[in-house]
Amino acid sequence: MHTTSPNFISIGQHILNRFKELGIDTIFGVPSDFNMPLLDLLEEDETLTWGNNANELNAAYAADGYARIRGISALVTAFGVGELSAMNGIAGAYSEMLPIIHIVGSPRTQYRESHALIHHTLGNGDYDIFYKMSSMLASASTNVTVSNAVSEIDRVISTAFITKRPGYIGLPCDIVNAMVEVPATALLCIDPPKSPVKSLAAANALILKEINDAKHPIIISDIGILRFHLESEANAFIERTGFPTYTAPMGKGSVNIDLPNYRGVYCGALSLDGIQQELETADLLIELGPIKSDFNTGNFTFGLEHVKTIVLHSYDVTIDQAEYAGVRMQELLPMLTQGINAKPSLEFGPLVKQKPIDQGSNEITSNYLWNKVNEYIKPNSIVVTETGSSGFAAPNALHAKDNTYISQVLWGSIGYSVPAAVGAAMAARHRQIYLFVGDGSFQVTAQEVSVFIRHGLTPVIFLLNNDGYLTEKLINGPHSSYNNFQMWEYSKAMTFFGAHLETNQNRKIGLEVQVKTRKEFESAMETVIQEPGKIHFLELVMPQFDAPRELEMLAESF
Amino acid sequence: MHTTSPNFISIGQHILNRFKELGIDTIFGVPSDFNMPLLDLLEEDETLTWGNNANELNAAYAADGYARIRGISALVTAFGVGELSAMNGIAGAYSEMLPIIHIVGSPRTQYRESHALIHHTLGNGDYDIFYKMSSMLASASTNVTVSNAVSEIDRVISTAFITKRPGYIGLPCDIVNAMVEVPATALLCIDPPKSPVKSLAAANALILKEINDAKHPIIISDIGILRFHLESEANAFIERTGFPTYTAPMGKGSVNIDLPNYRGVYCGALSLDGIQQELETADLLIELGPIKSDFNTGNFTFGLEHVKTIVLHSYDVTIDQAEYAGVRMQELLPMLTQGINAKPSLEFGPLVKQKPIDQGSNEITSNYLWNKVNEYIKPNSIVVTETGSSGFAAPNALHAKDNTYISQVLWGSIGYSVPAAVGAAMAARHRQIYLFVGDGSFQVTAQEVSVFIRHGLTPVIFLLNNDGYLTEKLINGPHSSYNNFQMWEYSKAMTFFGAHLETNQNRKIGLEVQVKTRKEFESAMETVIQEPGKIHFLELVMPQFDAPRELEMLAESF
Repeated sequence: MHTTSPNFISIGQHILNRFKELGIDTIFGVPSDFNMPLLDLLEEDETLTWGNNANELNAAYAADGYARIRGISALVTAFGVGELSAMNGIAGAYSEMLPIIHIVGSPRTQYRESHALIHHTLGNGDYDIFYKMSSMLASASTNVTVSNAVSEIDRVISTAFITKRPGYIGLPCDIVNAMVEVPATALLCIDPPKSPVKSLAAANALILKEINDAKHPIIISDIGILRFHLESEANAFIERTGFPTYTAPMGKGSVNIDLPNYRGVYCGALSLDGIQQELETADLLIELGPIKSDFNTGNFTFGLEHVKTIVLHSYDVTIDQAEYAGVRMQELLPMLTQGINAKPSLEFGPLVKQKPIDQGSNEITSNYLWNKVNEYIKPNSIVVTETGSSGFAAPNALHAKDNTYISQVLWGSIGYSVPAAVGAAMAARHRQIYLFVGDGSFQVTAQEVSVFIRHGLTPVIFLLNNDGYLTEKLINGPHSSYNNFQMWEYSKAMTFFGAHLETNQNRKIGLEVQVKTRKEFESAMETVIQEPGKIHFLELVMPQFDAPRELEMLAESF
Repeated sequence: MHTTSPNFISIGQHILNRFKELGIDTIFGVPSDFNMPLLDLLEEDETLTWGNNANELNAAYAADGYARIRGISALVTAFGVGELSAMNGIAGAYSEMLPIIHIVGSPRTQYRESHALIHHTLGNGDYDIFYKMSSMLASASTNVTVSNAVSEIDRVISTAFITKRPGYIGLPCDIVNAMVEVPATALLCIDPPKSPVKSLAAANALILKEINDAKHPIIISDIGILRFHLESEANAFIERTGFPTYTAPMGKGSVNIDLPNYRGVYCGALSLDGIQQELETADLLIELGPIKSDFNTGNFTFGLEHVKTIVLHSYDVTIDQAEYAGVRMQELLPMLTQGINAKPSLEFGPLVKQKPIDQGSNEITSNYLWNKVNEYIKPNSIVVTETGSSGFAAPNALHAKDNTYISQVLWGSIGYSVPAAVGAAMAARHRQIYLFVGDGSFQVTAQEVSVFIRHGLTPVIFLLNNDGYLTEKLINGPHSSYNNFQMWEYSKAMTFFGAHLETNQNRKIGLEVQVKTRKEFESAMETVIQEPGKIHFLELVMPQFDAPRELEMLAESF
């Protein structure tokens, strides 16, 4: 019989090996005396890159952005101070289903055991409190010891991967180099459990019958397709059915927009004018991996509750209210695609479009920006938007082929976009990144711009300067002092963050300009097009209370 | 009999009234749809100022800095995203005993009750999870309802004030303006419980006897004196005894340095050469409010364990290992001062001083900086230092009269100093603020510089640029890539953060310079002296591996 001889490797190396096995090549975080032994191993490994983030919240957001592209990511922080600073980013990853493996470098075992009064503690000898807090935001968590290291590390990573939620690993700095025994060829188990056979078959048969009985079925593709990487299964199903297909805002990018039956974004009353009329005759709704949150449904104006609904998830399927527990769309979607009778292909009119550019102004209004910018965005790019005007405008406005859209539609933490764009850029160095961020959000995490420079990343950054917290102003207190803040010279960001220093190794610096008119914008964008492979920073001065249609409607609904 | 007629006021107004009753005039935080109703009330009140912080972590640090000066502070964030971003700052306040009242604007009651899937939630309907997490870092916490509002708000604020730990108040945005009944003249109870009479008398008698029996008693004043605002009680005791008196690093600023028996800072092996010799004959050690953490004891080199010790706390007293539970130094210190027999006054030699300036160089070395800067620091100032070279150097180095020293000696979160200086400056607008921050720490929270500008605050900022995480490098990996990061053009900070914009209302802008030589430093400091009432930003370029003596010794001890 063939046996596998065990390997003896360090605990730290085992963690890094698991990361590499899952395709992680960049690890985000901030160094600390409690995690440097792990960083030493990381630095010795030429296939791994250290994220080098400016702070831990930014590092967590970067890990979130990376996981949206690569499917999983890793973050290293310090016990107490570092892990707590990352907490909002971890919660966002939990909320929006991104498996970030959070390694927390913790104090030496002897300090923990003696409840020593050291730095980064509360001064009360409690070494478990931060672990307890973080465990509430993790699908699995552990404090590693030498004796449990391999099994616990593997359990946390595989659970996080399967559930698409963060995993927490507390790693005392004195055992990083302790040797443990790992079976030489045992790969991590990352397969989700299989659907129950009978339930799967029953659900499949009933859905095929419902589809067959329906006259006007429609499909809405949502976040679950993206998080479980089921784009090809979903698109095969969508193509085979020929049914009119929409994406929810959180599902944008999950459907091939060249399919003749792709019809755009559906978000209730915030959908483009004309979209809702298309749905009036629908008698069967098939939802792929939906999250029916406020901002993903036009602030609860979904409006299709009267339609018979089939909901496919990665953990269950519901057919007209009846749940088939444990039936996973991973298995069900290919069966449906196989089993469906091809229908006569439908005829579709042209896609509904947003309101064209209002020509009466030379200002960079939202209406102008979100129309015009489409002309410049390349296919196969990554568009990162902020919880603010860009996040509300982009779903309806943008339509380049094969684009990936990154935004925190559910968690909605301002400041997310800049570090998330860093993470996405590290995850996909050969794809163009476009970052849209408002001035208020930018101020939250602005220092991460320097990380683009450090790594030679080349996003196009649009800083939407409308002088204050626009979204807040439209909801409450348009002229309140609390909705305003110190204006910065945003267009000097690249300079301040060191782009032109002689010591800067990555001189891929393009535009850094303030743009006030349409003509200036178009001229700048010509340069952006002509000079790819550079980082471009455009501060767009926009009218103070001008907002995209969707944000105006949303604010009114509050 | 005289009765008090009740007041009917809104819940939000009751909170603001309690804040004002405790002397809070500035409330830190970031606006959100969940907290704006409270901010409306705040903005209507001309006696209150909104902190206008760039993000929530910075706001929490600012609240910490404010509480160090004023004794208590207030912070307003948003449910989920905001409160979690503030978590590291709250933990630091817990660790270092600062009562920050954290008001978290939370979703409408109807959403909570229906477990609605709205933004800033985890998408699982759980509206209590963040409250549970925060409760671990609070001495008291509550989710306010209309029926419990007055009693719960009062309980949280008074508990936080008495215990000197954060308090958490979750406030649904729809009940901020709900009316509640408050007794018209009922002030908040903020008196701590009294010491048990018999224990207090016994402790007092025994301590007086121990003092009488001792030949060489010494006193070390520490953090408890500062946090419980017992400076006058402590100094009366110190003056009356005439015993050689030291401060621990965390207690620096608690003792009047003009007292003839004040001898400097004691921190074990990191004390200035000669200090430890002074203590060799000590046969009784009286500690006032100590925390014996690593960095407060020279990394556990305290070295006075053989000396008979009396420890006075705000919650108990220990005399040679015997605990007198509940005996508070607030009451005990005046009794001791009263009861002590005046001893013949001792003769003291000159104070031990740090190593004088090494004249062999023109560079701004640590040895030069921490000697020279003393010539420029005004009495009655506030000095804010970072967990890094400045935090380790300042205790031994600085010695201006009546100065307050702010640093996170126990919690030790880098990035703390810039926002903490904002908070301190708001708390003491007529005192000069000196901020010392390293380049790595600065990058964590740099955007808070713009808040100085916004409020017209006029600190002198020393940015110690040694090109990387110096403290980390001295502990591990001096040449590791992870201990370096993108260099910024730090001296352009004021410009980038909008100091020179026409819209900037507070044009109190002084120097913004990069300083590389001693001559340049001295010239810049002349300008600083000649132009008070302006914000000055000095980037000091320092040799890359040069560190103050204390940091070098500490790093070696790791």
